Amino acid sequence: MTDTLLTALTELLGPAHVLRGPDRAPYMSDWTGNYTADPLAVVRPADTAQVAAILRLAQTHRVPVVPVSGRTGLVGGAMTEGGLMLSVERLNRIREIRPESRIAVAEAGVILSTLHDAAEAKGLYFPLWFGARGSAMIGGVLSTNAGGSNVLRYGSTRALCLGLEVVLADGRVLNLMSALHKDNSGYDLRDLFIGAEGTLGVITAAVMKLVPRPRAYATATLAARSLPDALVLLNRLQAVTGGAVEAFEFMPDTYLRRLTEARPDVGEPFTPRHAVTILVEVGAITPRDADPGPDGSLPIATLLEDTLATMMDEGMVLDAQVAQSEAQRRAMWHRRELAAEVTFARSPAIDTDVALPLDAVAPFLTAIHNRLPALDAAAETLSVAHLGDGNVHFTIFPSRDAPALADTLLQAVEDEVQRLGGTFSAEHGVGLSKKPSMARHKDPVALAVMAQIKQALDPLNLMNPGKILP
Amino acid sequence: MTDTLLTALTELLGPAHVLRGPDRAPYMSDWTGNYTADPLAVVRPADTAQVAAILRLAQTHRVPVVPVSGRTGLVGGAMTEGGLMLSVERLNRIREIRPESRIAVAEAGVILSTLHDAAEAKGLYFPLWFGARGSAMIGGVLSTNAGGSNVLRYGSTRALCLGLEVVLADGRVLNLMSALHKDNSGYDLRDLFIGAEGTLGVITAAVMKLVPRPRAYATATLAARSLPDALVLLNRLQAVTGGAVEAFEFMPDTYLRRLTEARPDVGEPFTPRHAVTILVEVGAITPRDADPGPDGSLPIATLLEDTLATMMDEGMVLDAQVAQSEAQRRAMWHRRELAAEVTFARSPAIDTDVALPLDAVAPFLTAIHNRLPALDAAAETLSVAHLGDGNVHFTIFPSRDAPALADTLLQAVEDEVQRLGGTFSAEHGVGLSKKPSMARHKDPVALAVMAQIKQALDPLNLMNPGKILP
Repeated sequence: MTDTLLTALTELLGPAHVLRGPDRAPYMSDWTGNYTADPLAVVRPADTAQVAAILRLAQTHRVPVVPVSGRTGLVGGAMTEGGLMLSVERLNRIREIRPESRIAVAEAGVILSTLHDAAEAKGLYFPLWFGARGSAMIGGVLSTNAGGSNVLRYGSTRALCLGLEVVLADGRVLNLMSALHKDNSGYDLRDLFIGAEGTLGVITAAVMKLVPRPRAYATATLAARSLPDALVLLNRLQAVTGGAVEAFEFMPDTYLRRLTEARPDVGEPFTPRHAVTILVEVGAITPRDADPGPDGSLPIATLLEDTLATMMDEGMVLDAQVAQSEAQRRAMWHRRELAAEVTFARSPAIDTDVALPLDAVAPFLTAIHNRLPALDAAAETLSVAHLGDGNVHFTIFPSRDAPALADTLLQAVEDEVQRLGGTFSAEHGVGLSKKPSMARHKDPVALAVMAQIKQALDPLNLMNPGKILP
Repeated sequence: MTDTLLTALTELLGPAHVLRGPDRAPYMSDWTGNYTADPLAVVRPADTAQVAAILRLAQTHRVPVVPVSGRTGLVGGAMTEGGLMLSVERLNRIREIRPESRIAVAEAGVILSTLHDAAEAKGLYFPLWFGARGSAMIGGVLSTNAGGSNVLRYGSTRALCLGLEVVLADGRVLNLMSALHKDNSGYDLRDLFIGAEGTLGVITAAVMKLVPRPRAYATATLAARSLPDALVLLNRLQAVTGGAVEAFEFMPDTYLRRLTEARPDVGEPFTPRHAVTILVEVGAITPRDADPGPDGSLPIATLLEDTLATMMDEGMVLDAQVAQSEAQRRAMWHRRELAAEVTFARSPAIDTDVALPLDAVAPFLTAIHNRLPALDAAAETLSVAHLGDGNVHFTIFPSRDAPALADTLLQAVEDEVQRLGGTFSAEHGVGLSKKPSMARHKDPVALAVMAQIKQALDPLNLMNPGKILP
């Protein structure tokens, strides 16, 4: 049975694109090191028609299919034991960029940074930005509704997608490749597949929005007296710039200490270290924000500097550095983007990805830090946050590697998050790792409706089975 | 059987809220005059629990339920023959406004203008704006994913909704009332119910985004040499203001002529009439855009005036009036907002609501006007457009009232739209009137998937049956 399937796949794709045995090795582990896969084979289709043919074969043979792209996910969403791993890496064409309509039509295997470069070459910007941009691919970005550092200004992946092409479990190709900004022709199927982590079909291509490339950035690292004071800064900057804050990232002292331990070459912004360090970036898209004034200063930078200066006078900002060059800006970002490396360097670790109302972030951190000692006196924590979105990546390093303790600690975090109106999954998705959280915290009717939809679209449960739904 | 149901409904809601016989009259016709309803009864629940109880009773008795709110829709989406009409008008509480989080929690029966006023009282703005705002209710706004004049800056209803409460066909209450900006905890069910026109459940409440209220507007009516020249103006204004264009509305000469015939009191902006008249509005949300300069002029108005002056020098703008007072601004908007009244004053009429890529609007209008005479030599047309969204409300008045002719003319419009990459339904939805268009133009796999989802969530086909799906 399996041999028949593999023979058919080899005929379809050629032997170079049906990987078996040790050839599968690069696909069997993931970036976190927490998950391993053991696929029957890794198949690498060249186009949408081949994806459809693979899914038809898989259905005939009742073999599960797990779509994978850049494999930079953090929740085990691209793992399989015995199923086919369908890599979209060869669907890597940018089919079209239309600068006048500000859209890019990209296949699922296009690497995020490749799309960045292609947009930049046309004077535009694709504003989805996170550390793994050199590996992550559009298919995975869409399937996880990826977020990152610029969601504050531009929204998550969902907000940047106009159209989709999806191959369904039975091989039908769903063509939703609209480039329109208004389209009310029936149910919104596009958003159903975005964030579905490949459990409803394989995204093969998409129409993505591009935006004007900021003409200039003003970037600063600052120490705030408290998190509420940092939110005052955010609100003031949004008010004076008209919502031009591109990123507002929180790095607590615990993060900077660990960063220095792991990467002493990077350096810290302030001595002594402060409890609340913020990386803020404002983007100028108009000439009057970006064109230097008579004294050579950028208006956007002046707005940032004046706001910081006022808040230093008021005692809410304790110290601040404004980047004076692109190199200094890059260095500030580098310090923030090492977070994943620093977090995953140590184990055991309980990493979470929670979102809260903005003004609940500080109460959450206080509550969980008050509660932790009673659960594990020697536990340590590490967090970084997209504070402008209320999104905290909160990690606990427990004192010992014990599943029951890990579960207790995770539940403590998630209980506090739920109490404060937050979610246990902000931007990383559910995959395998958040399934228990789905069962515990998601509205039971919502879970039932998700299962009904899954059953309707994938009645044989072959599309990335065992993910998302408890 | 029916008597048992009505008795149970009367027990549940009280006799004042189960309308029968002539009491149903206000609900039996709609604003367009194109559709009539003959409901078994009109029921008016007071809260979500009563909505759930009604749906359970309807399921037990196998009676269809059509949710209605402000009944300002244009596609017959709220009609029924023999089903229950479930009016959400009594679910009319704004449960909460949280200015610091910029959200409003509103029930489905809240009138749009009531939400406008409530937001304004807190110094904020709910940026969904169209002519029927004094009658349309949030439930219908969400169920049709309504658009309007400010989509260009703020998006359609979908983009303004963070959370939903929905009662499903079997009476289960789905709680998706998140106020978070990031939430990747499973499938995006919210967007599935937005725009579903009540065919998957009854929306009872929502968490809606509020935005900073513009501190000042700069509004102008202008004549452009051509539609492409008008798009040059739009792009230049977006570039200098950083995307602050709130509305960009196109009124062709055919509209202004009919407007004057119907409402000679309103007056026209220019004599002689020009082919391309545009209403443009720019909103200032920052002090430096809104605070008057030394000479008393508003910076945002100066940006608009300078852009218009340059384009007049270049010959692309032929004439322009900038509103000098709120009264002049209101008068400019009044001229535009009479479009629905002017359009529906005459019959027979074939009204369409199409969207195209922005640069395809002019080719579409040329193509359809070239094609029409061969189909109906005496046909006349009327159009207005949210040009900034590529959304054209294109109406044909055929020379005679003949269904076959009407169908031929409609198909001609939709064929040109499809050829140019557009959609037959931009913002009004599908309802009854666009069902043939769905069958003709929508991707067949998309239609099949929609039917699968409908079957999964409403297996007895009781929720607004016969709408959307061909």
